Amino acid sequence: MVELAPESTQRPRVTRQDVARYAGVSSAVVSYVVNDGPKKVAPATAARVVDAIEVLGYRPNAAARALKLGSPEMLGLIVPDSTNLFFAEMAHAVEQAASERGYALLTANSAASLTKENNHLRNFRSRQVDGVLLASGLSDPDLSQLVGSDMPVVLLNRSGPREGIPTIGVDFRTGAATGVRHLVEHGHKDIGLVMGRDASSLSDDHRELGWLDALQEAGLPEGPIVRTSFDREGGYSAGRRMFSGPRRPSAVFVSSDMQAVGVMRAIHELGLSVPEDVAIVSFDGSPEAEYSWPPLTTLKQPVREMAEDAVKMLTSRTGPPAGDHHVYATELVIRRSCGCVQPSFEGREP
Amino acid sequence: MVELAPESTQRPRVTRQDVARYAGVSSAVVSYVVNDGPKKVAPATAARVVDAIEVLGYRPNAAARALKLGSPEMLGLIVPDSTNLFFAEMAHAVEQAASERGYALLTANSAASLTKENNHLRNFRSRQVDGVLLASGLSDPDLSQLVGSDMPVVLLNRSGPREGIPTIGVDFRTGAATGVRHLVEHGHKDIGLVMGRDASSLSDDHRELGWLDALQEAGLPEGPIVRTSFDREGGYSAGRRMFSGPRRPSAVFVSSDMQAVGVMRAIHELGLSVPEDVAIVSFDGSPEAEYSWPPLTTLKQPVREMAEDAVKMLTSRTGPPAGDHHVYATELVIRRSCGCVQPSFEGREP
Repeated sequence: MVELAPESTQRPRVTRQDVARYAGVSSAVVSYVVNDGPKKVAPATAARVVDAIEVLGYRPNAAARALKLGSPEMLGLIVPDSTNLFFAEMAHAVEQAASERGYALLTANSAASLTKENNHLRNFRSRQVDGVLLASGLSDPDLSQLVGSDMPVVLLNRSGPREGIPTIGVDFRTGAATGVRHLVEHGHKDIGLVMGRDASSLSDDHRELGWLDALQEAGLPEGPIVRTSFDREGGYSAGRRMFSGPRRPSAVFVSSDMQAVGVMRAIHELGLSVPEDVAIVSFDGSPEAEYSWPPLTTLKQPVREMAEDAVKMLTSRTGPPAGDHHVYATELVIRRSCGCVQPSFEGREP
Repeated sequence: MVELAPESTQRPRVTRQDVARYAGVSSAVVSYVVNDGPKKVAPATAARVVDAIEVLGYRPNAAARALKLGSPEMLGLIVPDSTNLFFAEMAHAVEQAASERGYALLTANSAASLTKENNHLRNFRSRQVDGVLLASGLSDPDLSQLVGSDMPVVLLNRSGPREGIPTIGVDFRTGAATGVRHLVEHGHKDIGLVMGRDASSLSDDHRELGWLDALQEAGLPEGPIVRTSFDREGGYSAGRRMFSGPRRPSAVFVSSDMQAVGVMRAIHELGLSVPEDVAIVSFDGSPEAEYSWPPLTTLKQPVREMAEDAVKMLTSRTGPPAGDHHVYATELVIRRSCGCVQPSFEGREP
């Protein structure tokens, strides 16, 4: 009996050089086609390369490349909840910024759980991602998983610096104060606060401090406060609680658009109107604020700029600057929920 | 002058065996700690291992492991737009199902562009991901990037099978017909359609066919149709167009919640009410439908089940079944936009 040599699995791996030889191009050109850059390749040449790849069964080996270059060209992003449109927009912007630099993006949801954040960090570390963007659900995330690691991390959505780690965030306090001041200018004297809860810290959220700043400035007393979870359901239950009784405030500042959408649902169900019975200003500037009814006046965070900044830091040759804190300003976007009529709608109002 | 030996870069790599020896455990236990399973390790033992990892500076090498095992344990997901809450929920569910099986998830947005879908597929292929979930923005995606590849793919959000590729999707036609029938039962005789456009195909979307089925069944004429992009802006402009004139339909079926939110914004701005002036039924069952005002009656897709199914297919030992089409039923979730009052609100209405 003739013994046949085992097929395929023992076959020597087809290399980029083999493809280059078959297609009659340099091996650099093969790389440009496979990696979609950095240089452009004429369509006819690219077609020849693709043909050679298919005929020879060449499979560019990212893992081997990763070992050789010491870089799998991947970033990892951890957010509390990617179905919060604010974080969905952030993830979208991070992916785009990463992709422009040749990095793929691993994404993970933490549900603001310390355990999950830690698991994701450990997982990213063991995969040797080139850098991590952590939008923690906690004001004081546990970064002990990073001890002894050379995996760079940038913290997103932060109100202040953290020793040894670069951080990015908006000026939450000034932003919130600007929003509450706007409600004061509309003549409101009783301005409530719906505030997200943070499990990791007893210190005040900077949005709450901004709300207080504006009230004190105007000589107004503190309105009612309801603390709730950072989601639509949390906003809804906070709204039912704050506006069911007879002594309801005439205006409210809400710590995120997502919660404000829940607050408005509660207000509508109670037969009240926004802004006639209750004026609202919220925070984030996500699409949720633009397409709610009425559209929300909100403090817009420059999500794209911050995402771009973070990715730049992580992918720079020198690595991210330890301990730096980049602060961005929010922009007051005026729509209907505060009592102003959106300028672009003027003239075509019912 | 004494020449010093170059440090660190030349140092031999610390291995898992070194860590095991240092911690006094088997190398399997080190692996359990590093990979968070599959077996549990007593906390005291785990602490010893973590200690050894830190002291020795061990860095588990995912790329090396990938080469050795032939598996980087990663899946890739492509969606048209992760800021559409329907896809955001899907990505969230896929990440969870993947993570439960030890897979990390690469995510990518295609903006329903053929070029971008192709680039992402090629990129995933060169990274040797273990499988791809493609929720194409096109009814007829180009899968030529997969020729000659052994990277398994599952198509999500599909209305029918595709030769050689496993597909998953809801019964769009029956779902849409159920929704439109509900509007007919409310007494509507003029029911419009706001329909997402598909750049890759001239054939009708199955939701449109379902709308037609229900109208024909009831002996009703076709209402007005506006075709628009699959986003909030598209819904908004479609709404302005359909409801500005004097001959507006009394009800409309909208092909996604995200578009319906835009349609409602247009209706509100025109001084009309939902459902009094215009009744609406939409499609998807995303959080956007629950927290709009009024809350949307919608056909809910079983997102979690479909995500779980797709991940199971891709990570099974035998690989996904070529050409199979898994069809899921949608559920009519009745809220206010159709003219029904949400049952759970009864008794506490204003």
